[in-house]
Amino acid sequence: MTLTIRPAVPADAALILRLVKELAEFEREPDAVVATEAALAYALFEERSAEAVIAQQDGLAVGFALFFHNFSTWTGRKGLYLEDLYVTPDARGSGVGTALLKHLAGIALDRDCARFEWAVLDWNTPAVDFYTAMGADSLDEWTVRRVTGDALVKLAGRT
Amino acid sequence: MTLTIRPAVPADAALILRLVKELAEFEREPDAVVATEAALAYALFEERSAEAVIAQQDGLAVGFALFFHNFSTWTGRKGLYLEDLYVTPDARGSGVGTALLKHLAGIALDRDCARFEWAVLDWNTPAVDFYTAMGADSLDEWTVRRVTGDALVKLAGRT
Repeated sequence: MTLTIRPAVPADAALILRLVKELAEFEREPDAVVATEAALAYALFEERSAEAVIAQQDGLAVGFALFFHNFSTWTGRKGLYLEDLYVTPDARGSGVGTALLKHLAGIALDRDCARFEWAVLDWNTPAVDFYTAMGADSLDEWTVRRVTGDALVKLAGRT
Repeated sequence: MTLTIRPAVPADAALILRLVKELAEFEREPDAVVATEAALAYALFEERSAEAVIAQQDGLAVGFALFFHNFSTWTGRKGLYLEDLYVTPDARGSGVGTALLKHLAGIALDRDCARFEWAVLDWNTPAVDFYTAMGADSLDEWTVRRVTGDALVKLAGRT
């Protein structure tokens, strides 16, 4: 089989939404996806707040990665942050995930990024071990905090 | 004293670098800052890969926050990610940090962000407790992984 990785195009919005939903199910949050096809299309191809690539085996979509640029004050340079990486169940174990990571690492270098980062669920042991084996540091001292919904409105003093 | 928060301007690059270095010392990583004034000025005011605001008490700079937009596939909307927040030692306890967070929460709402997020060091107990009290969720299940330097070149297959 021939594996190719290509930039996503507007016609991929429905595909990306389907894969985002499959990933959310795997992450045990099947109801968390409120994004719509239109919202993803706007973000990726008009606002350009994120980018995506599609992995194909013999022309069939078998995975995707969605990423954006973050920024590090310590390095003074932007980084590449991988928000989602997903490979369809049938295609797992054939190197698609590795190929996507390699592709994104190349983009990070081409764009002079200081770092390539993502987050992993602690209970996803195969992924945790895989990332460790490939040389990814683990930022164990740091915990991400999030304010959303009513708490965000309250914090902004707009209640 | 009068507290004001204003967007950073190019003339603030040296100030921001000084505050970034003070924050790195507090974070027990005094040698981690390799950023230069020119790199920060380029990122903030030319490339625009991040933004910053300065907190002033009676005209004297007493803190800053640096942030950029991330993106959530679950919501289909961008978010506001706070990379650095710092208040100078003499000004702590006077509400500068809270004012900066409130200001950023307002920017997040104005720009239709679904989330306002940042990371905290686990041993920074006052900050951890403060964020919990103000309603910030803690993403305990997630750990950030990072590839940089030689490991990034190797992952990209460019060794």
